[in-house]
Amino acid sequence: MKNYLFLPVFLLSNIFSNAQNPDSTMVSRIFGEALVNGKAHDQLRVLCKNYGPRLSGSPGAAAAVEYTYQVMLQMRLDSVWKQPCMVPHWERGTKERASILNTQIRGNVDVKICALGGSVATPAKGLRAEVIEIHDFDELKKIGKKGVEGKIVFYNHPFDNSLYSTFAAYSEAVRYRWQGPSEAQKLGAVGVIVRSMTNAIDDHPHTGVMRYDSLGATIPSAAISTRDAELLSHILKTEGKTFFYMEMNCQKFPDILSYNVIGEIRGSKFPNEVIAFGGHLDAWDLGEGAHDDGAGCMQAIEVLRIFKAQNIRPQHTIRAVMWMNEENGGRGGAEYARVAAAKKEKHLAAIESDAGGFSPRGFGTTMKPEQRAKVMSWGNLFLPYGIHDLSSSGGGADIEDLAEAGTPLLGLEPDGQRYFDYHHTEIDVWENVNRRELLLGAGAIAAMVYLIDTHGL
Amino acid sequence: MKNYLFLPVFLLSNIFSNAQNPDSTMVSRIFGEALVNGKAHDQLRVLCKNYGPRLSGSPGAAAAVEYTYQVMLQMRLDSVWKQPCMVPHWERGTKERASILNTQIRGNVDVKICALGGSVATPAKGLRAEVIEIHDFDELKKIGKKGVEGKIVFYNHPFDNSLYSTFAAYSEAVRYRWQGPSEAQKLGAVGVIVRSMTNAIDDHPHTGVMRYDSLGATIPSAAISTRDAELLSHILKTEGKTFFYMEMNCQKFPDILSYNVIGEIRGSKFPNEVIAFGGHLDAWDLGEGAHDDGAGCMQAIEVLRIFKAQNIRPQHTIRAVMWMNEENGGRGGAEYARVAAAKKEKHLAAIESDAGGFSPRGFGTTMKPEQRAKVMSWGNLFLPYGIHDLSSSGGGADIEDLAEAGTPLLGLEPDGQRYFDYHHTEIDVWENVNRRELLLGAGAIAAMVYLIDTHGL
Repeated sequence: MKNYLFLPVFLLSNIFSNAQNPDSTMVSRIFGEALVNGKAHDQLRVLCKNYGPRLSGSPGAAAAVEYTYQVMLQMRLDSVWKQPCMVPHWERGTKERASILNTQIRGNVDVKICALGGSVATPAKGLRAEVIEIHDFDELKKIGKKGVEGKIVFYNHPFDNSLYSTFAAYSEAVRYRWQGPSEAQKLGAVGVIVRSMTNAIDDHPHTGVMRYDSLGATIPSAAISTRDAELLSHILKTEGKTFFYMEMNCQKFPDILSYNVIGEIRGSKFPNEVIAFGGHLDAWDLGEGAHDDGAGCMQAIEVLRIFKAQNIRPQHTIRAVMWMNEENGGRGGAEYARVAAAKKEKHLAAIESDAGGFSPRGFGTTMKPEQRAKVMSWGNLFLPYGIHDLSSSGGGADIEDLAEAGTPLLGLEPDGQRYFDYHHTEIDVWENVNRRELLLGAGAIAAMVYLIDTHGL
Repeated sequence: MKNYLFLPVFLLSNIFSNAQNPDSTMVSRIFGEALVNGKAHDQLRVLCKNYGPRLSGSPGAAAAVEYTYQVMLQMRLDSVWKQPCMVPHWERGTKERASILNTQIRGNVDVKICALGGSVATPAKGLRAEVIEIHDFDELKKIGKKGVEGKIVFYNHPFDNSLYSTFAAYSEAVRYRWQGPSEAQKLGAVGVIVRSMTNAIDDHPHTGVMRYDSLGATIPSAAISTRDAELLSHILKTEGKTFFYMEMNCQKFPDILSYNVIGEIRGSKFPNEVIAFGGHLDAWDLGEGAHDDGAGCMQAIEVLRIFKAQNIRPQHTIRAVMWMNEENGGRGGAEYARVAAAKKEKHLAAIESDAGGFSPRGFGTTMKPEQRAKVMSWGNLFLPYGIHDLSSSGGGADIEDLAEAGTPLLGLEPDGQRYFDYHHTEIDVWENVNRRELLLGAGAIAAMVYLIDTHGL
């Protein structure tokens, strides 16, 4: 590419030179600080490699709490603390095996599965039953108890690839992971296999939580890789009646004490008004939780670092929060909102980054129309950094409870095309996070915090 | 992330339902066809895995010509042909070794280098000389012949990470790869080592062409990985006078016959007016040329596939071109423009994709202001697909010669943050190209071709 001297003129504008008013000067300083001196990528490496599997209640989660607490302590912030909350504790166990049995092509065919979060184990010797393919809940209903009883239900509902937004495809398909087990159980199913939630055709089963309320499934439930889902579907189509074997020894334990990790720089004028931002510290256990959501956590710490490095003294208190237990309970987010309400803390805004450490494209907002109009009026300040959409709805699971108190919510919206390649799998690892993309996201949040601090909402 | 039912409303809009007028209907059909049925990613896999190293003149390049020719023949286009052109032929050879000699820390330290395209070999027994670090041409000039003569010049000029545009950083730094060898040679240097052209700190030397005109360097010239550049700089700073050893057996051969590969659908109304689009088929030999520029080539074929699959009959001739020899000569682009001029072919527009198979963000253009205004008037049609910037300058090295005949040029501008992680290295491989990002780029080009065909320029 472009080896010679074909150099489009627009490329030559230094972001430091885009400054035309105090806001754009500050925003360019913020992005420059992130890109040149940013530490989030290195810190994410430590988090991922040392405290990779960190599902709520695990030793990894406890160590990640301590790591992020220590990192922020060393930054000489105004306050750093751990906010206690009780979290669910579920463990995958040591066995995850599955086979399609007695196929005509090649006998027993091993396939890749992983237990869905919250699933019960199979009997110790495994579960063997006929497997039936279900494409959607209408089909399940139609087949009914007679067709489902005693069988393993295989939900094979692919992502709608025609959707530009991979999150839209996820939202539409994830109901089969979320409600699928309990719906199948109601009709007498003995187990559930769900096609993994991804656009990709690959060999990585994607875990994730299923409904865990009082109706929650008590039948073994697992995700199957998309490639193996296609294989299973093919065998069912060509061979008819097929048996499936699965073995898992996952287990639920009593709730356990954990923490949200919080650090803040106190506001010079309005110390009691808070702008909170962050991600969730817990992560699914198959990978390292790099994009989901180590990225959001390290960006939050990076925002504080940028403010200190650039000597920006905020008027309002700015607070990085690493929420615990977003993945399978949401307890950290709930506790944070409860404490804020109890203390009558005013939150000027809450910003979540929980869609991966990819190039930022915009912020989604949940707030009053006049507040959104104000955010959108800052659009030109973000454009030089490729952030072009401030008009969409959005927020985040960890901050949504703050909306009850009227807090305006923002969610960082990075490019989402690759997100579900990694989501909840063994390949959600640090190597798949690009330094610049991660730091641009941190810069975007820092710039948004700066603008909200300066101009209010 | 977002496990529960926190589903921003905006995510639920199906791109097929965005249709509000004939253009947006057609654009959504085009993107849907790309994302759902696109073949570019699979075809790129074949190109990369079977014809990976395909520098001009290599057997891989010849096989890639045949492969793409056959793929287009099987598509039942109106015409498919190979356009002959003579290309340079340079081979890397089998040896690329280098060491920092007699360091105090640990004796001889091996470092990773690769010959720059067009470099001469070292003597068979290698080149051993004192190495001096140079940060820019001013410094080189200051040190002068006395300081440079008989030495190996090590250009250690890093990318400016503060720039949002990685291409801007490349443009600023690449002069040391491009002119560096001949500038050093003028002052009596015996060899050149250039810090690799990338934002990343990694172990992959990045090759690329150096100036090959009559002043071209005849001293051995290589790129060193950024990590080893930092090491070498550190040793020079801490230990002072340091010797360097390098050994390469690259070689230049006589020019050889090769081809641009071209396929077209003839225009129903204006068969003699052409909209050309494509990328370059040759690629540096260290990797597979996946992003640079297998992506652009496969996108061009995909555009034709989309038109046929969606039964869109263009009024003007639409033509996919896989140019040969962009990397170290530009002969294919020059020959294509020469033939077009000789045949008095009118090009309505030429579009190049040569910035990687990443999520498209916009098009850069080189055309009359009123033409650019027309392109920009289509902005809202692209926005639902994350393509937000049609205002910048741009084009492409393979199409720039068409500008002489007044052809409006467009260059696809994908997200550029990761591009120089892979550029010209052993890790520019298929696995690093995301299917959806690649196909969105193809959809963007197809949509642009459709709009130009329908509304003119």
